[in-house]
Amino acid sequence: MTKGSLFIISGPSGTGKGTVCKELARHDNIYLSVSATTRDKRVGEEEGVTYFYITKEEFSDMINQGMMLEYAKYSGNYYGTPKRQVEKMLDEGKNVILEIEAQGALKVKEKMPEAVMIFIVPPSIKELKSRLSKRGRESAEEIEKRINTAKWEFSQCPKYNYVLVNDDLETCVKDTLEIIKATNERQELIERLLKEI
Amino acid sequence: MTKGSLFIISGPSGTGKGTVCKELARHDNIYLSVSATTRDKRVGEEEGVTYFYITKEEFSDMINQGMMLEYAKYSGNYYGTPKRQVEKMLDEGKNVILEIEAQGALKVKEKMPEAVMIFIVPPSIKELKSRLSKRGRESAEEIEKRINTAKWEFSQCPKYNYVLVNDDLETCVKDTLEIIKATNERQELIERLLKEI
Repeated sequence: MTKGSLFIISGPSGTGKGTVCKELARHDNIYLSVSATTRDKRVGEEEGVTYFYITKEEFSDMINQGMMLEYAKYSGNYYGTPKRQVEKMLDEGKNVILEIEAQGALKVKEKMPEAVMIFIVPPSIKELKSRLSKRGRESAEEIEKRINTAKWEFSQCPKYNYVLVNDDLETCVKDTLEIIKATNERQELIERLLKEI
Repeated sequence: MTKGSLFIISGPSGTGKGTVCKELARHDNIYLSVSATTRDKRVGEEEGVTYFYITKEEFSDMINQGMMLEYAKYSGNYYGTPKRQVEKMLDEGKNVILEIEAQGALKVKEKMPEAVMIFIVPPSIKELKSRLSKRGRESAEEIEKRINTAKWEFSQCPKYNYVLVNDDLETCVKDTLEIIKATNERQELIERLLKEI
Protein backbone atom coordinates (compact mmCIF):
# COMPACT_ATOMS: atom_id res chain seq x y z
CA MET A 1 0.00 0.00 0.00
CA THR A 2 1.14 3.52 -0.79
CA LYS A 3 2.08 5.41 2.36
CA GLY A 4 -0.17 8.37 3.13
CA SER A 5 1.04 11.96 3.01
CA LEU A 6 1.30 14.55 5.74
CA PHE A 7 -0.07 18.05 5.17
CA ILE A 8 0.66 20.91 7.52
CA ILE A 9 -1.82 23.76 7.40
CA SER A 10 -0.88 27.09 8.96
CA GLY A 11 -2.04 30.65 8.71
CA PRO A 12 -2.64 33.69 10.87
CA SER A 13 -5.46 33.58 13.38
CA GLY A 14 -8.67 34.57 11.58
CA THR A 15 -7.82 33.26 8.11
CA GLY A 16 -10.38 30.50 8.51
CA LYS A 17 -7.92 27.61 8.37
CA GLY A 18 -9.93 25.71 11.00
CA THR A 19 -13.01 25.76 8.79
CA VAL A 20 -10.93 24.67 5.78
CA CYS A 21 -9.56 21.71 7.78
CA LYS A 22 -13.03 20.67 8.97
CA GLU A 23 -14.27 20.70 5.37
CA LEU A 24 -11.26 18.66 4.21
CA ALA A 25 -11.90 16.01 6.87
CA ARG A 26 -15.30 15.32 5.34
CA HIS A 27 -13.56 13.88 2.27
CA ASP A 28 -12.42 10.31 1.68
CA ASN A 29 -9.10 9.30 3.18
CA ILE A 30 -8.37 12.70 4.77
CA TYR A 31 -7.94 12.75 8.55
CA LEU A 32 -7.17 15.50 11.03
CA SER A 33 -4.42 14.86 13.52
CA VAL A 34 -5.65 15.25 17.09
CA SER A 35 -3.37 17.16 19.49
CA ALA A 36 -2.64 16.22 23.07
CA THR A 37 -3.15 18.81 25.79
CA THR A 38 -2.74 19.17 29.53
CA ARG A 39 -5.63 21.61 29.84
CA ASP A 40 -9.01 20.57 31.24
CA LYS A 41 -11.75 19.25 28.99
CA ARG A 42 -14.40 21.88 28.29
CA VAL A 43 -18.12 21.34 27.83
CA GLY A 44 -18.87 20.00 24.36
CA GLU A 45 -15.33 18.71 23.79
CA GLU A 46 -14.62 15.04 23.21
CA GLU A 47 -11.61 12.90 24.18
CA GLY A 48 -9.70 11.80 21.07
CA VAL A 49 -11.71 14.14 18.86
CA THR A 50 -11.10 17.68 20.16
CA TYR A 51 -7.93 16.69 22.03
CA PHE A 52 -6.29 13.83 23.84
CA TYR A 53 -6.40 14.98 27.47
CA ILE A 54 -3.29 13.94 29.40
CA THR A 55 -1.57 14.99 32.63
CA LYS A 56 1.50 17.23 32.82
CA GLU A 57 3.56 14.20 33.89
CA GLU A 58 2.41 12.17 30.89
CA PHE A 59 3.12 15.13 28.62
CA SER A 60 6.66 15.68 29.88
CA ASP A 61 7.34 11.92 29.67
CA MET A 62 6.29 12.02 26.03
CA ILE A 63 8.57 14.99 25.34
CA ASN A 64 11.52 13.25 27.01
CA GLN A 65 10.94 10.08 25.01
CA GLY A 66 10.83 12.04 21.73
CA MET A 67 7.18 11.11 21.26
CA MET A 68 6.04 14.65 20.38
CA LEU A 69 6.52 15.95 16.85
CA GLU A 70 6.22 19.45 18.29
CA TYR A 71 4.76 21.10 21.35
CA ALA A 72 4.14 24.52 22.81
CA LYS A 73 2.98 26.08 26.07
CA TYR A 74 0.09 28.55 26.13
CA SER A 75 -1.22 30.16 29.32
CA GLY A 76 0.20 27.46 31.56
CA ASN A 77 -0.89 24.45 29.51
CA TYR A 78 0.93 22.25 27.02
CA TYR A 79 -0.30 21.40 23.55
CA GLY A 80 1.48 18.96 21.24
CA THR A 81 1.31 16.54 18.34
CA PRO A 82 1.81 12.88 19.30
CA LYS A 83 4.17 11.35 16.73
CA ARG A 84 2.83 7.80 16.95
CA GLN A 85 -0.70 8.79 16.01
CA VAL A 86 0.48 10.61 12.87
CA GLU A 87 2.81 7.79 11.83
CA LYS A 88 0.13 5.14 12.32
CA MET A 89 -2.30 6.98 10.03
CA LEU A 90 0.42 7.52 7.39
CA ASP A 91 1.32 3.81 7.49
CA GLU A 92 -2.36 3.03 6.91
CA GLY A 93 -2.18 5.09 3.69
CA LYS A 94 -4.20 7.98 5.08
CA ASN A 95 -3.72 11.64 4.21
CA VAL A 96 -3.13 13.40 7.51
CA ILE A 97 -3.81 17.08 8.14
CA LEU A 98 -1.94 18.90 10.88
CA GLU A 99 -3.44 22.31 11.68
CA ILE A 100 -0.62 24.03 13.44
CA GLU A 101 0.98 27.49 13.90
CA ALA A 102 4.10 28.37 11.91
CA GLN A 103 6.66 27.80 14.67
CA GLY A 104 5.44 24.24 15.33
CA ALA A 105 5.05 23.66 11.60
CA LEU A 106 8.72 24.38 10.96
CA LYS A 107 9.69 21.99 13.77
CA VAL A 108 7.60 19.20 12.21
CA LYS A 109 9.11 19.93 8.78
CA GLU A 110 12.61 19.49 10.26
CA LYS A 111 11.66 16.04 11.56
CA MET A 112 9.53 15.05 8.55
CA PRO A 113 10.93 16.89 5.50
CA GLU A 114 8.42 15.09 3.27
CA ALA A 115 5.54 17.02 4.92
CA VAL A 116 3.69 19.26 2.48
CA MET A 117 3.31 22.71 4.02
CA ILE A 118 0.31 24.85 3.10
CA PHE A 119 -0.03 28.42 4.31
CA ILE A 120 -3.44 30.04 4.20
CA VAL A 121 -3.58 33.84 3.97
CA PRO A 122 -6.51 36.27 4.05
CA PRO A 123 -7.20 38.34 0.91
CA SER A 124 -6.11 41.48 2.80
CA ILE A 125 -5.16 42.66 6.28
CA LYS A 126 -8.33 44.76 6.37
CA GLU A 127 -10.37 41.60 5.82
CA LEU A 128 -8.34 39.74 8.47
CA LYS A 129 -9.05 42.46 11.05
CA SER A 130 -12.73 42.48 10.10
CA ARG A 131 -12.99 38.66 10.48
CA LEU A 132 -11.29 38.79 13.89
CA SER A 133 -13.63 41.56 15.10
CA LYS A 134 -16.72 39.78 13.75
CA ARG A 135 -16.08 36.54 15.57
CA GLY A 136 -15.93 38.64 18.74
CA ARG A 137 -13.69 36.27 20.68
CA GLU A 138 -10.81 38.75 21.10
CA SER A 139 -10.47 42.26 22.49
CA ALA A 140 -9.18 45.09 20.25
CA GLU A 141 -5.83 44.77 22.02
CA GLU A 142 -5.76 41.00 21.44
CA ILE A 143 -6.58 41.55 17.75
CA GLU A 144 -3.63 43.94 17.40
CA LYS A 145 -1.43 41.29 19.03
CA ARG A 146 -2.61 38.69 16.53
CA ILE A 147 -1.95 41.01 13.60
CA ASN A 148 1.57 41.52 14.90
CA THR A 149 2.08 37.76 15.14
CA ALA A 150 0.79 37.50 11.57
CA LYS A 151 3.69 39.71 10.50
CA TRP A 152 6.21 37.10 11.60
CA GLU A 153 4.07 34.30 10.18
CA PHE A 154 3.92 35.94 6.74
CA SER A 155 7.70 36.19 6.73
CA GLN A 156 7.84 32.40 7.08
CA CYS A 157 5.67 31.86 3.99
CA PRO A 158 8.54 31.24 1.55
CA LYS A 159 9.40 28.11 3.55
CA TYR A 160 5.97 26.68 2.79
CA ASN A 161 5.21 24.54 -0.27
CA TYR A 162 2.02 26.34 -1.07
CA VAL A 163 0.33 29.62 -0.19
CA LEU A 164 -3.44 29.79 -0.67
CA VAL A 165 -5.65 32.84 -0.36
CA ASN A 166 -8.83 32.13 1.58
CA ASP A 167 -11.14 34.58 -0.15
CA ASP A 168 -13.89 32.07 -0.80
CA LEU A 169 -14.06 28.97 1.44
CA GLU A 170 -15.21 26.59 -1.30
CA THR A 171 -12.37 27.62 -3.66
CA CYS A 172 -9.80 27.35 -0.89
CA VAL A 173 -10.98 23.83 0.02
CA LYS A 174 -10.98 22.84 -3.67
CA ASP A 175 -7.40 24.14 -4.09
CA THR A 176 -6.27 22.19 -1.04
CA LEU A 177 -7.92 19.01 -2.31
CA GLU A 178 -6.05 19.45 -5.59
CA ILE A 179 -2.75 19.74 -3.71
CA ILE A 180 -3.58 16.53 -1.81
CA LYS A 181 -4.46 14.74 -5.06
CA ALA A 182 -1.29 15.95 -6.81
CA THR A 183 0.83 14.85 -3.83
CA ASN A 184 -0.74 11.38 -3.86
CA GLU A 185 -0.21 11.05 -7.61
CA ARG A 186 3.40 12.10 -7.26
CA GLN A 187 3.90 9.47 -4.54
CA GLU A 188 2.47 6.82 -6.86
CA LEU A 189 4.71 7.98 -9.72
CA ILE A 190 7.83 7.68 -7.58
CA GLU A 191 6.80 4.26 -6.30
CA ARG A 192 6.24 3.10 -9.88
CA LEU A 193 9.67 4.36 -10.97
CA LEU A 194 11.33 2.73 -7.95
CA LYS A 195 9.64 -0.58 -8.79
CA GLU A 196 10.95 -0.36 -12.35
CA ILE A 197 14.58 -0.22 -11.18
CA MET B 1 12.29 45.77 -5.34
CA THR B 2 10.96 42.27 -4.78
CA LYS B 3 13.75 39.85 -3.92
CA GLY B 4 14.29 37.10 -6.52
CA SER B 5 13.61 33.45 -5.83
CA LEU B 6 15.96 30.51 -5.78
CA PHE B 7 15.04 27.34 -7.67
CA ILE B 8 16.93 24.10 -7.21
CA ILE B 9 16.63 21.64 -10.07
CA SER B 10 17.67 18.03 -9.51
CA GLY B 11 17.03 14.75 -11.18
CA PRO B 12 18.82 11.52 -12.07
CA SER B 13 21.54 11.65 -14.71
CA GLY B 14 19.90 11.36 -18.12
CA THR B 15 16.57 13.03 -17.30
CA GLY B 16 17.53 16.01 -19.42
CA LYS B 17 17.59 18.55 -16.58
CA GLY B 18 20.60 20.29 -18.14
CA THR B 19 18.65 20.95 -21.33
CA VAL B 20 15.66 22.18 -19.31
CA CYS B 21 17.91 24.62 -17.40
CA LYS B 22 19.50 25.92 -20.60
CA GLU B 23 16.04 26.58 -22.05
CA LEU B 24 14.91 28.34 -18.86
CA ALA B 25 17.94 30.65 -18.95
CA ARG B 26 16.78 32.00 -22.31
CA HIS B 27 13.80 33.60 -20.58
CA ASP B 28 13.60 37.04 -18.99
CA ASN B 29 14.94 37.39 -15.47
CA ILE B 30 16.01 33.73 -15.14
CA TYR B 31 19.70 33.10 -14.48
CA LEU B 32 21.74 29.95 -13.96
CA SER B 33 24.06 29.87 -11.00
CA VAL B 34 27.65 29.11 -12.07
CA SER B 35 29.57 26.60 -9.94
CA ALA B 36 33.17 26.91 -8.86
CA THR B 37 35.56 24.04 -9.56
CA THR B 38 39.18 23.09 -8.99
CA ARG B 39 39.38 21.02 -12.16
CA ASP B 40 41.16 22.29 -15.27
CA LYS B 41 39.32 24.24 -17.92
CA ARG B 42 38.51 22.11 -20.94
CA VAL B 43 38.41 23.18 -24.58
CA GLY B 44 35.20 25.09 -25.35
CA GLU B 45 34.56 25.98 -21.71
CA GLU B 46 34.41 29.57 -20.52
CA GLU B 47 35.43 31.17 -17.21
CA GLY B 48 32.35 32.44 -15.36
CA VAL B 49 30.00 30.70 -17.80
CA THR B 50 30.76 26.98 -17.61
CA TYR B 51 32.49 27.27 -14.22
CA PHE B 52 34.55 29.61 -12.09
CA TYR B 53 37.99 27.96 -12.14
CA ILE B 54 39.78 28.32 -8.83
CA THR B 55 42.70 26.62 -7.06
CA LYS B 56 42.33 23.99 -4.34
CA GLU B 57 43.63 26.54 -1.81
CA GLU B 58 41.04 29.11 -2.84
CA PHE B 59 38.33 26.45 -2.71
CA SER B 60 39.23 25.26 0.80
CA ASP B 61 39.46 28.88 2.00
CA MET B 62 35.93 29.45 0.71
CA ILE B 63 34.68 26.32 2.52
CA ASN B 64 36.34 27.41 5.78
CA GLN B 65 34.82 30.87 5.53
CA GLY B 66 31.34 29.44 4.94
CA MET B 67 31.27 30.90 1.45
CA MET B 68 30.04 27.70 -0.23
CA LEU B 69 26.33 26.88 -0.16
CA GLU B 70 27.31 23.27 -0.83
CA TYR B 71 30.25 21.41 -2.34
CA ALA B 72 31.26 17.92 -3.34
CA LYS B 73 34.37 16.08 -4.50
CA TYR B 74 34.33 14.02 -7.69
CA SER B 75 37.39 12.15 -9.00
CA GLY B 76 39.84 14.31 -7.09
CA ASN B 77 38.30 17.69 -7.88
CA TYR B 78 35.99 19.96 -5.93
CA TYR B 79 32.77 21.47 -7.24
CA GLY B 80 30.67 23.95 -5.27
CA THR B 81 28.14 26.75 -5.28
CA PRO B 82 29.53 30.15 -4.23
CA LYS B 83 27.02 31.70 -1.83
CA ARG B 84 27.79 35.34 -2.65
CA GLN B 85 27.02 34.96 -6.34
CA VAL B 86 23.58 33.46 -5.61
CA GLU B 87 22.74 36.07 -2.96
CA LYS B 88 23.79 38.94 -5.21
CA MET B 89 21.48 37.79 -8.01
CA LEU B 90 18.58 37.28 -5.56
CA ASP B 91 19.10 40.79 -4.14
CA GLU B 92 18.92 42.11 -7.70
CA GLY B 93 15.45 40.54 -8.01
CA LYS B 94 16.60 37.76 -10.34
CA ASN B 95 15.23 34.24 -10.43
CA VAL B 96 18.21 31.97 -9.88
CA ILE B 97 18.40 28.36 -11.05
CA LEU B 98 20.73 25.94 -9.30
CA GLU B 99 21.18 22.68 -11.20
CA ILE B 100 22.47 20.36 -8.55
CA GLU B 101 22.33 16.71 -7.43
CA ALA B 102 19.99 15.71 -4.60
CA GLN B 103 22.60 15.54 -1.81
CA GLY B 104 23.81 19.09 -2.48
CA ALA B 105 20.24 20.26 -3.01
CA LEU B 106 19.21 19.16 0.47
CA LYS B 107 22.23 20.97 1.95
CA VAL B 108 21.21 24.20 0.18
CA LYS B 109 17.60 23.77 1.35
CA GLU B 110 18.85 23.54 4.96
CA LYS B 111 20.67 26.86 4.59
CA MET B 112 18.01 28.53 2.44
CA PRO B 113 14.64 26.97 3.38
CA GLU B 114 12.87 29.37 1.02
CA ALA B 115 14.48 27.64 -1.99
CA VAL B 116 11.91 26.02 -4.28
CA MET B 117 13.03 22.47 -5.06
CA ILE B 118 12.07 20.90 -8.37
CA PHE B 119 12.83 17.27 -9.14
CA ILE B 120 12.76 16.14 -12.76
CA VAL B 121 12.06 12.48 -13.45
CA PRO B 122 12.06 10.46 -16.67
CA PRO B 123 8.74 8.96 -17.85
CA SER B 124 10.12 5.47 -17.11
CA ILE B 125 13.33 3.70 -16.11
CA LYS B 126 13.40 2.03 -19.54
CA GLU B 127 13.43 5.49 -21.14
CA LEU B 128 16.13 6.69 -18.71
CA LYS B 129 18.38 3.75 -19.65
CA SER B 130 17.75 4.35 -23.32
CA ARG B 131 18.64 8.08 -23.02
CA LEU B 132 21.83 7.26 -21.15
CA SER B 133 22.86 4.66 -23.81
CA LYS B 134 22.03 7.01 -26.67
CA ARG B 135 24.19 9.87 -25.45
CA GLY B 136 27.04 7.34 -25.43
CA ARG B 137 29.08 9.10 -22.74
CA GLU B 138 28.96 6.24 -20.22
CA SER B 139 29.83 2.53 -20.32
CA ALA B 140 27.15 -0.09 -19.57
CA GLU B 141 28.66 -0.48 -16.12
CA GLU B 142 28.58 3.28 -15.55
CA ILE B 143 24.92 3.36 -16.66
CA GLU B 144 24.03 0.69 -14.11
CA LYS B 145 25.81 2.77 -11.46
CA ARG B 146 23.77 5.84 -12.40
CA ILE B 147 20.52 3.88 -12.27
CA ASN B 148 21.46 2.72 -8.79
CA THR B 149 22.15 6.30 -7.71
CA ALA B 150 18.75 7.25 -9.18
CA LYS B 151 17.16 4.85 -6.69
CA TRP B 152 18.39 6.92 -3.77
CA GLU B 153 17.53 10.14 -5.56
CA PHE B 154 13.92 9.03 -6.17
CA SER B 155 13.57 8.29 -2.45
CA GLN B 156 14.41 11.96 -1.76
CA CYS B 157 11.60 13.20 -4.01
CA PRO B 158 9.04 13.76 -1.24
CA LYS B 159 11.36 16.44 0.17
CA TYR B 160 11.07 18.42 -3.06
CA ASN B 161 8.39 21.04 -3.69
CA TYR B 162 7.61 19.82 -7.17
CA VAL B 163 8.18 16.68 -9.22
CA LEU B 164 7.99 17.09 -13.00
CA VAL B 165 8.08 14.34 -15.61
CA ASN B 166 10.35 15.19 -18.53
CA ASP B 167 8.50 13.32 -21.26
CA ASP B 168 8.41 16.24 -23.66
CA LEU B 169 11.04 18.99 -23.26
CA GLU B 170 8.73 21.85 -24.22
CA THR B 171 6.04 20.80 -21.71
CA CYS B 172 8.62 20.35 -18.96
CA VAL B 173 10.06 23.84 -19.58
CA LYS B 174 6.54 25.31 -19.65
CA ASP B 175 5.67 23.62 -16.33
CA THR B 176 8.86 24.96 -14.75
CA LEU B 177 8.15 28.49 -16.02
CA GLU B 178 4.70 28.25 -14.42
CA ILE B 179 6.26 27.28 -11.09
CA ILE B 180 8.62 30.26 -11.33
CA LYS B 181 5.72 32.58 -12.16
CA ALA B 182 3.58 31.23 -9.29
CA THR B 183 6.50 31.62 -6.86
CA ASN B 184 7.05 35.24 -7.94
CA GLU B 185 3.32 36.01 -7.59
CA ARG B 186 3.27 34.48 -4.14
CA GLN B 187 6.25 36.59 -3.13
CA GLU B 188 4.41 39.72 -4.31
CA LEU B 189 1.26 38.67 -2.44
CA ILE B 190 3.18 38.26 0.82
CA GLU B 191 4.96 41.58 0.36
CA ARG B 192 1.63 43.28 -0.25
CA LEU B 193 0.12 41.75 2.91
CA LEU B 194 3.20 42.73 4.96
CA LYS B 195 2.93 46.30 3.70
CA GLU B 196 -0.74 46.41 4.77
CA ILE B 197 0.13 45.62 8.38
